[in-house]
Amino acid sequence: AAGAAFDAMAAPAAGFVARDAAAPAPPAGRLHRVDLRVREVQREVAPGVRQKLWTFNGTAPGPVLRGRVGDTFEITLSNDGSVDHGVDFHAGALAPDVPMRPIDPGQRLTYRFTATRAGIWMYHCSTMPMLLHIGNGMYGAVIIDPPALPAVDREYVLVQSELYLGADGAIGDLAKMRAETPDAVVFNGYAAQYAHRPLTATAGDRVRVWVLNAGPSRTSAFHVVGAQFDTVYREGRWELRPSGPGAAQVLDLAPAAGGFVETVLPAPGTYPFVSHVMVDAERGARGAIRAG
Amino acid sequence: AAGAAFDAMAAPAAGFVARDAAAPAPPAGRLHRVDLRVREVQREVAPGVRQKLWTFNGTAPGPVLRGRVGDTFEITLSNDGSVDHGVDFHAGALAPDVPMRPIDPGQRLTYRFTATRAGIWMYHCSTMPMLLHIGNGMYGAVIIDPPALPAVDREYVLVQSELYLGADGAIGDLAKMRAETPDAVVFNGYAAQYAHRPLTATAGDRVRVWVLNAGPSRTSAFHVVGAQFDTVYREGRWELRPSGPGAAQVLDLAPAAGGFVETVLPAPGTYPFVSHVMVDAERGARGAIRAG
Amino acid sequence: AAGAAFDAMAAPAAGFVARDAAAPAPPAGRLHRVDLRVREVQREVAPGVRQKLWTFNGTAPGPVLRGRVGDTFEITLSNDGSVDHGVDFHAGALAPDVPMRPIDPGQRLTYRFTATRAGIWMYHCSTMPMLLHIGNGMYGAVIIDPPALPAVDREYVLVQSELYLGADGAIGDLAKMRAETPDAVVFNGYAAQYAHRPLTATAGDRVRVWVLNAGPSRTSAFHVVGAQFDTVYREGRWELRPSGPGAAQVLDLAPAAGGFVETVLPAPGTYPFVSHVMVDAERGARGAIRAG
Ligand SMILES: [Cu+2]
Ligand SMILES: [Cu+2]
Ligand SMILES: [Cu+2]
Ligand SMILES: [Cu+2]
Ligand SMILES: [Cu+2]
Ligand SMILES: [Cu+2]
Ligand code: NA
Ligand code: NA
Ligand code: NA
Ligand code: NA
Ligand code: NA
Ligand code: NA
Ligand SMILES: [Zn+2]
Ligand SMILES: [Zn+2]
Ligand SMILES: [Zn+2]
Ligand SMILES: [Zn+2]
Ligand SMILES: [Zn+2]
Ligand SMILES: [Zn+2]
Ligand SMILES: [Zn+2]
Ligand SMILES: [Zn+2]
Ligand SMILES: [Zn+2]
Repeated sequence: AAGAAFDAMAAPAAGFVARDAAAPAPPAGRLHRVDLRVREVQREVAPGVRQKLWTFNGTAPGPVLRGRVGDTFEITLSNDGSVDHGVDFHAGALAPDVPMRPIDPGQRLTYRFTATRAGIWMYHCSTMPMLLHIGNGMYGAVIIDPPALPAVDREYVLVQSELYLGADGAIGDLAKMRAETPDAVVFNGYAAQYAHRPLTATAGDRVRVWVLNAGPSRTSAFHVVGAQFDTVYREGRWELRPSGPGAAQVLDLAPAAGGFVETVLPAPGTYPFVSHVMVDAERGARGAIRAG
Repeated sequence: AAGAAFDAMAAPAAGFVARDAAAPAPPAGRLHRVDLRVREVQREVAPGVRQKLWTFNGTAPGPVLRGRVGDTFEITLSNDGSVDHGVDFHAGALAPDVPMRPIDPGQRLTYRFTATRAGIWMYHCSTMPMLLHIGNGMYGAVIIDPPALPAVDREYVLVQSELYLGADGAIGDLAKMRAETPDAVVFNGYAAQYAHRPLTATAGDRVRVWVLNAGPSRTSAFHVVGAQFDTVYREGRWELRPSGPGAAQVLDLAPAAGGFVETVLPAPGTYPFVSHVMVDAERGARGAIRAG
Repeated sequence: AAGAAFDAMAAPAAGFVARDAAAPAPPAGRLHRVDLRVREVQREVAPGVRQKLWTFNGTAPGPVLRGRVGDTFEITLSNDGSVDHGVDFHAGALAPDVPMRPIDPGQRLTYRFTATRAGIWMYHCSTMPMLLHIGNGMYGAVIIDPPALPAVDREYVLVQSELYLGADGAIGDLAKMRAETPDAVVFNGYAAQYAHRPLTATAGDRVRVWVLNAGPSRTSAFHVVGAQFDTVYREGRWELRPSGPGAAQVLDLAPAAGGFVETVLPAPGTYPFVSHVMVDAERGARGAIRAG
């Protein structure tokens, strides 16, 4: 079971469109109704490599949700897949027994939670083995803005995850997941997509990048080449503000941890980003921001 | 040398009693005399899997010690094992040459240290190769309360460690330790024991969980499903307090790091916990808190 | 391709001289001209093990640079090697396109950056595959002092990195780098050198140790046996000061992260240090401070 071939240096096809990494604005209103449909889909995850992913709403990661402290989310999960699935939202505090239970194919489930705490929170399938369900695509991010979060010029969201390739067109390889031998480590679901289709900005922009490490198992060490993070927010707290004399080169995130960094891009140019866990950068955990 | 078989989904026998995870109260008085006897014991570490562990006082982890800033610990180590052992307490600052030296089987050693700094501190055997001595069971925790630590409704201690299984009834497999290929990752010495015998609480309780990562080699990412950590204390400092708007989903701990988290369980139910390094959760780094 | 043999317990030859780990003083003046020559050299990296390293100025790590917030560095990179190389300084913020480009053997490149932010910053070769260029020796540290950094009695710099041994006298093994199976993990480029040639101090000294984790891929968990860190500075911010009641046992650093710790050595003796990722300590990530 060697899995699909993966060439970390290959370029995607000419028509390739990268996933939009722009952070969504918080929707108006304080109640957000979200339909999450579990769908099994064929997706390209690296140039020439297709896998059958288990997804929320057809993409891995699933949709990025956003709100403010005090907002309520009403989630309706519909299982249009072929095996049991469920969903666990770290953004809410509630007894998991009923809302996070696995549901059968064809079933649906609705529940509400109020997001009382700021941060970027993981959501993921709650069905065992979670290693497989997360590893096969069932993860996403919820952003709850810290109060008085300043506006910035550009705001992106990157979710890091690992790919353990099964045969072409098949689901991921559980044995590789158990051995922690990923074939690829990616941002927003596709190997090195933003190296080929850079994120955009303008020189002088203050850029905020939200990063969630969905794992399932690798630590992330997010770094932007040519930039320094004068602002770091990590797991619910401000660690650096621009007023201080220090800055950070890395935002380190264990699996299921998240935060954001900010930097002002000093001049026009292309600023690569990586997980500075270099073996993972090599496997696709890289991209770039192009400042015009 | 495939080692003992390990079935991560197996249940322990009906009579299985999980290790008591309740945090001990700080003892009265300011001088704490502690007898640590190195004992080689046969122990079940997962359902049906027995190993010969090297232990402090017969269990791995060894006893949880507790005190306040300024308390003195007088440790008497007796080596009732068959090879050299010693002990290194991170909770004290002192020249290691004499007190942490390896002692021969049959010997004993007494030394004192004063705990001048708060935190949850690792102790472990100090004899080389430490990878093997820690990997075979010789580790534990000392809690030194931060001044004015608030009382909570429930207080638990979880020590994460890895198991590299040798043959049934034999010591751990050093080659696996050197390859960092653990068979199991566990809290308080037994795979998934609190999944089968949950920790208990009452809905509305503020629960504090002290976590020490004994390693020897894996990072921990402690998470409680359905809960958010409004309080985080990590490696000697408060990182989050309930008064702030943020909270954390993960307490990440490198080997030999420790801290505590607090959460209020919002309703009756069963709240699973894991290391969100999912490959390790799969290998036994999971449990649950049941709130009545 | 088993690579060179490595005996983690072997002692270096009698005439072995460890790399000087003393932190350099910040040079006078506010403009620092630095010549970095890429040189391919044969070096011993562990007792009896020689590799062909790619280096900045003949050593791995390259020179430790130091300055103050606001200082300008003028870097002249000369490629005296046999393949393309470049250099990325995390200490500066600038568009990477021109200054960090790979240059051919025989070429040179000059650029300036102003260090506007405090911290210990990585520099490394910027040529792809960076996993190989960093893994084969092309990394170093720049210290930018936080304002009002107190004087201490001793100040050291340790750069952690991994060795993936190729054949004796050859470059490192890229396949091992891609499998993250290092043969050795080392401080300042040589396995366990300071275990055999301890750093020196005097009892009662306040010792500051700057640590940069160059990776390329492993997390570091820096710990000094017998000592507690009452001061921790990590990625641009103070995390602990001596005035507080807490202290830390571990400075955890993802690849490309850095900081410093301080401790007062309480009595004469030998204080071992390790990465408490024990599998890496076993592979050479250890040393000692001897206090007279
Ligand atoms: Cu699922
Ligand atoms: Cu870098
Ligand atoms: Cu021992
Ligand atoms: Cu989770
Ligand atoms: Cu290079
Ligand atoms: Cu230790
Ligand atoms: Na990517
Ligand atoms: Na700052
Ligand atoms: Na367990
Ligand atoms: Na808070
Ligand atoms: Na070393
Ligand atoms: Na302190
Ligand atoms: Zn699922
Ligand atoms: Zn079902
Ligand atoms: Zn960089
Ligand atoms: Zn021992
Ligand atoms: Zn002996
Ligand atoms: Zn969860
Ligand atoms: Zn190079
Ligand atoms: Zn060229
Ligand atoms: Zn220690």
